[in-house]
Amino acid sequence: MDALCAAARWCAARGWVPATSGNFSVRAGAHIHITATGLDKGALTPEDLLEIDSEGRAIAGRGRPSAETSLHAVIYRERPQARAILHVHTVWNTLISARYEAAGHVPLEGYELLKGLAGVTTHEHTERVPVLKNAQDYATLADEVKSALDAHAEAHGVLLSRHGLYTWGQSVAEARRHLEALEFLFEVEERRLSVRG
Amino acid sequence: MDALCAAARWCAARGWVPATSGNFSVRAGAHIHITATGLDKGALTPEDLLEIDSEGRAIAGRGRPSAETSLHAVIYRERPQARAILHVHTVWNTLISARYEAAGHVPLEGYELLKGLAGVTTHEHTERVPVLKNAQDYATLADEVKSALDAHAEAHGVLLSRHGLYTWGQSVAEARRHLEALEFLFEVEERRLSVRG
Amino acid sequence: MDALCAAARWCAARGWVPATSGNFSVRAGAHIHITATGLDKGALTPEDLLEIDSEGRAIAGRGRPSAETSLHAVIYRERPQARAILHVHTVWNTLISARYEAAGHVPLEGYELLKGLAGVTTHEHTERVPVLKNAQDYATLADEVKSALDAHAEAHGVLLSRHGLYTWGQSVAEARRHLEALEFLFEVEERRLSVRG
Amino acid sequence: MDALCAAARWCAARGWVPATSGNFSVRAGAHIHITATGLDKGALTPEDLLEIDSEGRAIAGRGRPSAETSLHAVIYRERPQARAILHVHTVWNTLISARYEAAGHVPLEGYELLKGLAGVTTHEHTERVPVLKNAQDYATLADEVKSALDAHAEAHGVLLSRHGLYTWGQSVAEARRHLEALEFLFEVEERRLSVRG
Repeated sequence: MDALCAAARWCAARGWVPATSGNFSVRAGAHIHITATGLDKGALTPEDLLEIDSEGRAIAGRGRPSAETSLHAVIYRERPQARAILHVHTVWNTLISARYEAAGHVPLEGYELLKGLAGVTTHEHTERVPVLKNAQDYATLADEVKSALDAHAEAHGVLLSRHGLYTWGQSVAEARRHLEALEFLFEVEERRLSVRG
Repeated sequence: MDALCAAARWCAARGWVPATSGNFSVRAGAHIHITATGLDKGALTPEDLLEIDSEGRAIAGRGRPSAETSLHAVIYRERPQARAILHVHTVWNTLISARYEAAGHVPLEGYELLKGLAGVTTHEHTERVPVLKNAQDYATLADEVKSALDAHAEAHGVLLSRHGLYTWGQSVAEARRHLEALEFLFEVEERRLSVRG
Repeated sequence: MDALCAAARWCAARGWVPATSGNFSVRAGAHIHITATGLDKGALTPEDLLEIDSEGRAIAGRGRPSAETSLHAVIYRERPQARAILHVHTVWNTLISARYEAAGHVPLEGYELLKGLAGVTTHEHTERVPVLKNAQDYATLADEVKSALDAHAEAHGVLLSRHGLYTWGQSVAEARRHLEALEFLFEVEERRLSVRG
Repeated sequence: MDALCAAARWCAARGWVPATSGNFSVRAGAHIHITATGLDKGALTPEDLLEIDSEGRAIAGRGRPSAETSLHAVIYRERPQARAILHVHTVWNTLISARYEAAGHVPLEGYELLKGLAGVTTHEHTERVPVLKNAQDYATLADEVKSALDAHAEAHGVLLSRHGLYTWGQSVAEARRHLEALEFLFEVEERRLSVRG
């Protein structure tokens, strides 16, 4: 949980969780430890995490769980290896998610940094990051995330359009590596397409 | 006042108050505590705040009140819930204010981060941030700010064209959340429109 | 000299003096204290300053004076009020100097931040920052800087094309205020013109 | 090796080695001290360096050598003066390497900051940074790096397309100066060409 809070503070320092946005979790057995809603992530400590049981109830910690806790739960169910989930709002993931909302996914290919994603061993790889239409009905959204993860069994992240990125890993370190790789690639692609597009 | 100074230093670190620009205040009863003019906000402490009475007179503190103190006063009158006001000059609010000066307001819609604004519960919201022509006659400008706040009763901020953003909140934390949300959205919109516009 | 070194370190932290570029000075009577050539400005201390006499000779301090010391000398002669000079290489001043090299100056107008320049009291001001063709013959270049300062008696800075900005002030604080204001305006203008130009 | 680790941490702070990418080395006699693969460069210490002998075998240190160790070895052979090599993945070197992949090199000319490169004494210089097609076969890639260094005997760096930059110097300080100069110029050129290109 210290590693999770360090990752959250690192994101805050880069401007990736503006206006108390974003949320972060780790899985421990059947339970999830997740950031309470509305916190400034720049000063996050383990005391700011809520423990959520398998029914989605907060059983320890201060504050209210984010409405997006259900999205974390569905990701942990669909990706059994995942131990940590990071969710951020960045300028570049917002722009590229809007660009590819109609297409349904962002294609990333030909970049060495794709090798930052677990299991990818060459730049000659196409990563497809699904993009879902944003919604405030989180039960429906959770179903759509489930479908997207099924349809993109190899995906390392999911975008909600004009909202943000969810990514995960077998550890906080791996989740953060995926986050850094995907955000780098989103920025490069969006800048490239802004010139030629 | 410590929270206000921390917010000011945070803005300075991001380059949002260049060249001693920007000003910051909190309300305490009928009085306002506001930054003196000409200070480098990167090293702001509570000793750098002036106390202003309801007649606009400095009754405590060193330094000279900014000419923009009257704009803070009118915002506090028009927004009775407001307890803190932040005013910054950023590259993105400068660019987008110029783009929308003729239109009279910046429209922001469809972004999850709109939920960073108090009372907004869905991305399906249109925030209209009024844009006023810049002026050096602060009495007239204060009247125009009053009119804009009346005309946009739901607005969370006001832009002065090619000058900067005023935003506020019921606490310093809320004002800073509004600031971060609006600046993020200005950057995203201006970048998006620069490509497609 | 502590203030000068703090300003230099601040510039280094923003990436404004890459690759040991840039130089910084203060005037004390007929002498100039200036950064030695080739130093990383991120760790500058007063011991890294050379004292230069009115003949341009280094009379105290370690290291070699920069070839650009003669440009500092001519600015101090032409601007008798100046007590500090800052010279930086930034992405935005490089881009905008190239854009306006043929025109001979960068026009800046209509921005509130112009008031960050000494003596400017309204955004309804046109600041003309002369742009000189870059050269390695510093004697000739010093003559051209002299001519530009004579021709633009109100200018707060001088650009060398695809090289960098010189700005000055009656104190280090004022010079830094001019630097921040001009760099902000260069970025805003270059971004604006990149879209519409 | 302390200087190398400081340079690596400095790169990490700027976002130039995302997702544990990048690698860094110094030469000591016939041996190379190089970062182990997969480390977060933001916390690099000399204990994280591997000692590699002239046969390419790790003879001291924890962790696994990067597959790119062979590229460091070939650079040290082709550039006998080099004592340090830095390899980073940045947004701007990725974009500009893709732009010039077909041309085979990035031309940089007319900028004062070219003088940050050893032996360059005027902005009237054309630096040609070779761009190689990226590959995962490092034996072949090492041969291509060798050919590129032979063909561009004056080059201060080599780009792998959509991958990153290798640069070097007679000391860590010189290598870092080359890195800062080249990255600055890549950003300026890519931004300039994005507008006019």
